[in-house]
This record gives sequence, C-alpha cells and structure tokens, in this order.
Amino acid sequence: MKNIIPQEVTLHEVVLRDGIQNEKNIIPTEEKIKLINKLIDCGLRRIEVSSFVNPRFVPQMADSEDLWNKIERKKDVLYSALILGEKSLDRAIHCHVPHVGIFLSASETHSLKNSNRSVSEAKKEAIVLIEKAKSAGMGVRAGVMNAFGCAYEGKIPIEKVTNLISNLVKAEPDEICLADTSGMANPRQMREVLKQVREVVGDRTVSLHLHNTRGLGLANVWEALQHGVRIFDTSMGGLGGCPFIPGARGNIATEDTVHMLHEMGIKVGIDLNCLINESLCFEKFIGKEFPAMVSHL
Amino acid sequence: MKNIIPQEVTLHEVVLRDGIQNEKNIIPTEEKIKLINKLIDCGLRRIEVSSFVNPRFVPQMADSEDLWNKIERKKDVLYSALILGEKSLDRAIHCHVPHVGIFLSASETHSLKNSNRSVSEAKKEAIVLIEKAKSAGMGVRAGVMNAFGCAYEGKIPIEKVTNLISNLVKAEPDEICLADTSGMANPRQMREVLKQVREVVGDRTVSLHLHNTRGLGLANVWEALQHGVRIFDTSMGGLGGCPFIPGARGNIATEDTVHMLHEMGIKVGIDLNCLINESLCFEKFIGKEFPAMVSHL
Repeated sequence: MKNIIPQEVTLHEVVLRDGIQNEKNIIPTEEKIKLINKLIDCGLRRIEVSSFVNPRFVPQMADSEDLWNKIERKKDVLYSALILGEKSLDRAIHCHVPHVGIFLSASETHSLKNSNRSVSEAKKEAIVLIEKAKSAGMGVRAGVMNAFGCAYEGKIPIEKVTNLISNLVKAEPDEICLADTSGMANPRQMREVLKQVREVVGDRTVSLHLHNTRGLGLANVWEALQHGVRIFDTSMGGLGGCPFIPGARGNIATEDTVHMLHEMGIKVGIDLNCLINESLCFEKFIGKEFPAMVSHL
Repeated sequence: MKNIIPQEVTLHEVVLRDGIQNEKNIIPTEEKIKLINKLIDCGLRRIEVSSFVNPRFVPQMADSEDLWNKIERKKDVLYSALILGEKSLDRAIHCHVPHVGIFLSASETHSLKNSNRSVSEAKKEAIVLIEKAKSAGMGVRAGVMNAFGCAYEGKIPIEKVTNLISNLVKAEPDEICLADTSGMANPRQMREVLKQVREVVGDRTVSLHLHNTRGLGLANVWEALQHGVRIFDTSMGGLGGCPFIPGARGNIATEDTVHMLHEMGIKVGIDLNCLINESLCFEKFIGKEFPAMVSHL
C-alpha cells in the first residue's frame, strides 16, 4: 500500500478521554454531552466518550456510566470507550457501549506503572478481554501503547511490537491501533514500523494514536498516510498529554490534522471552521491556551 | 534524488534576523555577538547575522554595520546577510559581508507590500543584485518568498515559482532557496514543487526556509529530505514570524529540527543539549515563551 495517498481519512476524536483526563477541574456531564453533540455537528463520526477507569486514578472519568446513559446514540456515529481491565469491560458491557479500545504497553516499566502487570501478563489479559468484548457484540480496536518509544525506557524494539500484535490479531479485533504514548515517533521510524506491522496484520485495519510532544505529529501522519493508515486519533485543540511527562504537549490537534488533510485534497467530512469555533469555545471554558495552531492564526 | 534520505544536513540559523526582527525591545549589539558565539559553540556553521534594511522599517536591524564590524569571523563558519535592494547590497559590500541572500516574492501583493515593486520589476532587480554580489566576491543564495502560498493571495501556481527560478539561475547564484514565508506549505505540495523545481535547477543546491505557522514545518522537512534538500533555515526557539499574520508562529525551531534529524540518524553537527540551554537562556532574556517543543519537555 506504500505511496498511495488516500482520498479519504477518518478521525477518532479523543478530546473527551485523553484530552481532558488530566484536567483538574471536573467537567460536568452536561457539558460533556454538549461537546459530543457539537463535535458530531462539525462532522466527526468516531467519538471516544470516556474510559472506564477507577475514578480514584482519573477523577474526570467518574461520570462514565452517567455519561453513557445520557448521550444520544446516532446511527452514523461510532461511540467508543477505553477499557482498562476486566471490571472496566464489565462496566462498559453494562452501559451497552458499542465499541471499545483495549490496549497494552510495549514497555515493561510503563506496563507496570499503568496496569500493575508485566507486558506478558497484560498481553494474556488483553486477549481475554478482546474475546469477551467480541462475544458481547462490541466492535474492538486492540492497541499497543508506547509502540514507538517509551519515556521511561527509551527505544522499544520493533520486534517487541510486532510480536505483541501477532498475538493480539489471533483474537480478531476489528482494528489494530499503534499508540505513540510518549510522543517519541519520527517519520523515518514510522515508515519502518508500519512496514513490519503490515507483514503481521495483513489487510487488517491499522490506526494511529499520535502525540505532538516533539512537533512531529503531523510529519508522522504524512508518512503513515503512505502506508495504508486511514484512521487517526486526534484531540480537539491538541488537548491531552501524559501525566508522567511534565510540559509535554498533547495529542495531535483535530483542527491541525483536518487542515493538513484538506490542503492535501483528502476528504475528512469535517467542517473546519465549525471545529475551530468549537475548539476556541472549549478553550475559553477550560481557561488555558490549547496547543492547536490553525485555531490561533 | 527521490527517496534517498541524506546522511548529513546543514542548518542555516536565522534567529538573529527573522527570529528577532519583530521583537519590540531592541537587543544590544553586544548581546547579538554573544548569541552568535554561543550558536557557533553549539555547532551551527551558517549564521544569518542581520538584514541590511531601512531601520525605520525594522528597528532591530539598525546596528547592522556595527554588528558586522564587531563579529569575529571564523574560517569554518558561513556568515550571511539578507539583502533588500541595491542600497542594502552596497552597505553589505562596504561591511565585507561574505555571503548574502537575495529574495523576491512570487506574490504580486506581497511583492508590492514588501518591496514596493511588481514581481516582474523585483525579478529584474534581483538578477542585477545577484550579478553585482558575485562580482564583489560574495557567495549568493537567491530565493523566492511565498513559493508555497501567500497570506494575501492564497495559492501560488507552481509555474510562477519555476518561472522565477529559471530566471534567477541564469545569474548563477550558488544556491536556490524556496521560502514558505506565509507558512502555508503542506508535504504533498512540497513533493510536487520540489519535483518541478528540480527540473529547472538541475543539480544546483536547493535550500528551504520554512515556517511552522500551521504545524507542518517538520512534515515539510521530512518530505524535502527525500527530494535532495540538504540545507534548511531554522530559528533557535522557533522564534520569528510574519508581522502581517497575527498570532502566527515562527520559523521551524532549530532544536526541534536537530532533534528530528538526530532521531532519524542524520548528522547535523550540533550539540542538542547545548542548543536547548542557549535557547532557554535567550527565552529568559527575551521574556516570552518560545514555540520550540523539545526545549520545553
């Protein structure tokens, strides 16, 4: 699939999960519902609504059940949740969540800090969770965090990533997602990783979750477009960021990604002006400057 | 030259010219000299020292003569100045400037605003200036501003750019520089422009002057690396920006570019830690946050 620039790309909006999870001020459920509706009005068709996580660790996600019970579920929108363990999946099943993300980390240190499990234990658990979610009728994206490097461990060997993925695909998730959790990917590495991952996943859908920590987010998108990636996680305003990397910038910004894709003649189905307006409104609501660029020209 | 990723890249540091030209507080000549020496200590070997411009328009450049008279001229460093018209070149000749940049704009509106000349008039003048500078023994880079789009006019046809360049090369400059003055280039366009420019310039050196206005600076660097570009203008801290685009971010940041190139195994000859330290010092001196990312992790 190399060097074929796609005509269409889908964005998976994570501002409600990755974006706000580190914001100290708790956003009321009603505001989250308004934001979801606005994002859909702007044309987004994949929304990560929340993660099912212990609210002691991520207080912003404490209203997950309430939120899922209150949102309108439009037919042409994919509403997704991030799952962290079996209890988390049970909560999602209870809320009739139609689509989940199940991730493990390629870094031992990060795996222990994030899930209190070794990579090998997390891998076994992820496979069980994918199978259970599928049995419950859910769509599933299975992913590898820190697939391009780790803030604690530095470089992560590609074989470690492809090995994990070859295990995950046996459970037949609908999509494999590579996450650059620490924002360490560069486009030359992206080329190499995607080539090797493609050999493992065949024609399965591959998506990317990128952070713009070092200014390389859109360079990585550009390279990935040439290797069959058609789904990218983005966060409105570029909000988000790892709590373990002080000063780190957030996810790649939805508006900056839409702008790039539009300029390159690629359809995204999103009204950029509408999105910029909503981003600026939400920035005002949150009360700090977002890192997105095209909304601040 | 497509798809051959280079082993080595040279950065042309513009913080002293493009970087500070819009800063209201005048930086003393002695501080500029210190900064030049620090940049060289970090490994930079091409420094744009100043522009010779009417100080009424750019007060920050009023000390150009004084600065050129006072700087140490090391043998392995290329010291360059930006030239704007014949008087400007005469001033540079008077200062024994060894290398100059001579630019015209591909946009009629910008050309009139920037130089009070039509593109056609500016083209004729540029050719005369290149020849005069060469006769004076200077190295010359000739460039086209707004080669990838114009904040006033929008898209600029590639033929307009290649046509200007085919005229400039007749005067035999040492290097052709394409400037994305308005920060509007995208990597798909970069590929197309560089392919067509290459047909006009043959094996002449092509360099790029990029801004990160819309977050695409390093994506454009990555694409350009695969099309024979080995020299990039960068500004420490990412300082810089067009006075006509409110809120616009600056030039691509030297430290972010060095970081990307290092991560991809490309030699730049620059000590990244040293550069980050200097950038943070200068940021403190200027008193506002610079847009560079790797210096703020």
